[in-house]
Amino acid sequence: MSKIKVAVHGLGNIGKGVVDSLLSAYDFECLGVVRRAASLGTQPLALRGVQDYASFDELVAAKGKPDVVIICGPSRNVPKDARFYLEKGIRTVDSFDIHAEIPKLVEELDKASRSAGVPCITAAGWDPGTDSLMRAVFEAMTPVGTTFTNFGRGRSMGHSVAVRSLDGVADACAITIPIGGGKHSRLVYVLPEAGASFADIKQRIASDPYFSSDPLDVREVANPQEMASVADNSHGVLMERIGSSGSVSNQRLSFDMRIDNPALTAQILVSCARAVTRLAPGCHTLIDVPPVAMLPGDRMKNIARLV
Amino acid sequence: MSKIKVAVHGLGNIGKGVVDSLLSAYDFECLGVVRRAASLGTQPLALRGVQDYASFDELVAAKGKPDVVIICGPSRNVPKDARFYLEKGIRTVDSFDIHAEIPKLVEELDKASRSAGVPCITAAGWDPGTDSLMRAVFEAMTPVGTTFTNFGRGRSMGHSVAVRSLDGVADACAITIPIGGGKHSRLVYVLPEAGASFADIKQRIASDPYFSSDPLDVREVANPQEMASVADNSHGVLMERIGSSGSVSNQRLSFDMRIDNPALTAQILVSCARAVTRLAPGCHTLIDVPPVAMLPGDRMKNIARLV
Repeated sequence: MSKIKVAVHGLGNIGKGVVDSLLSAYDFECLGVVRRAASLGTQPLALRGVQDYASFDELVAAKGKPDVVIICGPSRNVPKDARFYLEKGIRTVDSFDIHAEIPKLVEELDKASRSAGVPCITAAGWDPGTDSLMRAVFEAMTPVGTTFTNFGRGRSMGHSVAVRSLDGVADACAITIPIGGGKHSRLVYVLPEAGASFADIKQRIASDPYFSSDPLDVREVANPQEMASVADNSHGVLMERIGSSGSVSNQRLSFDMRIDNPALTAQILVSCARAVTRLAPGCHTLIDVPPVAMLPGDRMKNIARLV
Repeated sequence: MSKIKVAVHGLGNIGKGVVDSLLSAYDFECLGVVRRAASLGTQPLALRGVQDYASFDELVAAKGKPDVVIICGPSRNVPKDARFYLEKGIRTVDSFDIHAEIPKLVEELDKASRSAGVPCITAAGWDPGTDSLMRAVFEAMTPVGTTFTNFGRGRSMGHSVAVRSLDGVADACAITIPIGGGKHSRLVYVLPEAGASFADIKQRIASDPYFSSDPLDVREVANPQEMASVADNSHGVLMERIGSSGSVSNQRLSFDMRIDNPALTAQILVSCARAVTRLAPGCHTLIDVPPVAMLPGDRMKNIARLV
C-alpha cells in the first residue's frame, strides 16, 4: 500500500499534534515540517525524528512532493498559505476558525482549488469542524427545533488573546464556562505587568465587547508559574437539540465530548488529510465530506464494520 | 423553486411517518403512495390527502414520474423493490436494517444504480443510519479506542417478531434495556394463545439463540389491551467512545438520543431523499453522504449558518 505523503506547515501546538497523529497512523508518511528559519532544529522531541525545513522548496528538494500539506499556522494566514500550496497543485487541509469569514474563504479557495485541479478542506477542527457536522446531522434528523452548542469548561484561545492585547497585561488565560442555552460565563486570569493596575485592567476587560455581554469573573495571578497552573488543554462541548421529526416533537439529541483541545484539532486535520485525497477538486468543509472518506482502509470494509 | 417529487412505497409505520415528514417540508411534493390493492383507501387520516395507488404505473399515469421513491416495505423485500425502481431510472432510498447483509446489498444496488445512471441510498434509518455516521465520525476523531452502542430502553422490532413466531404465542413485545458496555437485557411481554403454556413459552424464549446470551425477563400479559399498554414507540441510543487522538488518550465522546422510533426513521429517509437528488450514480450508505446534502436550501447558506 502506498502511504499518503504529508508535509506540515507550522509547528505550534496544532502542528506538534499533527506530527504526533501522522506518526500514529499506518497509512501516512510525514515528509517534514515547514517553519520559520529562526526556529529550525528546536523542539527535537516534538519533531520525533521528523525533519524541519525553512521553506517548502527545501522540503520538496529533500523529500519530494507531498500529496497533502496540513496548514498549522495562525488562522489569519490561512487564505494566503492555502492558495500558495494549491497554486503548486498540492492539496491542503486547514483549521481556519474565524466563523464569520468561512463562507468567503470557501469561495476563494474553491476557485484556487478548481483552477489547480486539486481539492482542499477548510475549517477542519472541532468547531468549526466536527461540531458543524453534528449540527448538520441533528437538523437532518429533526428539521424543526433549536440547537445549543455549549462550550467548556476550557480555555478560549480567542478570548485569551483579546485580554493579552490590552495595555498593562503581561499574560492572560480566559476560561469559557457553559451556563446553559448556548450561553457562557468567562473566568479570566490576568498577570499584570509591573506597575499596572489590576483594578483598571479588570474594568477594561469588563467593557470590552468581547466580554461585556457575558457574566465575568476576573482574577489576578501573581507570577508566570501560577498562570501556567491554570492553563491546561482540557476542553469540551455539550451540543443539545430538542426538535421534531415530521410532526412528532420531543426528539432529544445530544453530543457530549471532553477532550484535549489541540490533540483533537490535530487528529481531525489528519483524518481530513486522508479524506482530501479521495475528494474531487473544490473547497470542502466538514459538512461536505462523506464521513467514510476520513477513515483508513477500504470503504466496503468500513461499511461492513460500521454501518 | 421546483420541489422534489417523491413517491412512497408501502404504508406501514415508517410509510406513514414518511408521508408526515414530506408534508412538513417545503421542498418536497408527495405524489402518492404505492401499496397493496387490498388496503387502498384505508387510513385516510394517515394519508392526509395523499392518494394511494395499487401500482407504480398507476401512480405515474396519474401524477407523472417521481424524482425519488422512498421504500417503506419490509427489509427482506428491499433488494427486489429497490432494483425494480432503479431499473426504471428512479432514485431510491430505503431503510434496509439487516446489518450483516448490508455490504452485499450495497454491491448489488451499486451495479443496478450505475447501469441505470441514478444514485440510491440504502440502510438509511438511525441504526443502521445516523448511528453508523456517528461511529465513523467518532473514529475519525479518536482512531484508537472502543465504541459502545447502547440501545434503549425501547421496543425491538426484530426481537418482538422472533417471539411472535414461536408456537403458542398470540402476540409479543420485546423491550431492549441497556446494561452498559454495549450489552443489553431483554424484557419480553407475551400473550399466550388460548390453551398454550406460558411456562413452556418462557423456556423456549430462554433457549432461543436470539435471547440466550442476554439477561432475560419474560412476563405474561392477559389480553391485547394490556399488550398495547406496553408497546409505545419511545427508543434511544447512548453511544460512547473513549479513545486517543494521536498519542493523547482520555478523549471522551458520547452521543445520546431519546426519540420516537418510526418518526426518526421516517425523517431520516426523507432527508436522504433530498440528498439522493444531489449524489452521483452508485449505492450510498449514510457514511458515504456529505451531511450538507441532507439539508434543504443552498449549500453556501448552510455553510454560513452551521460551519
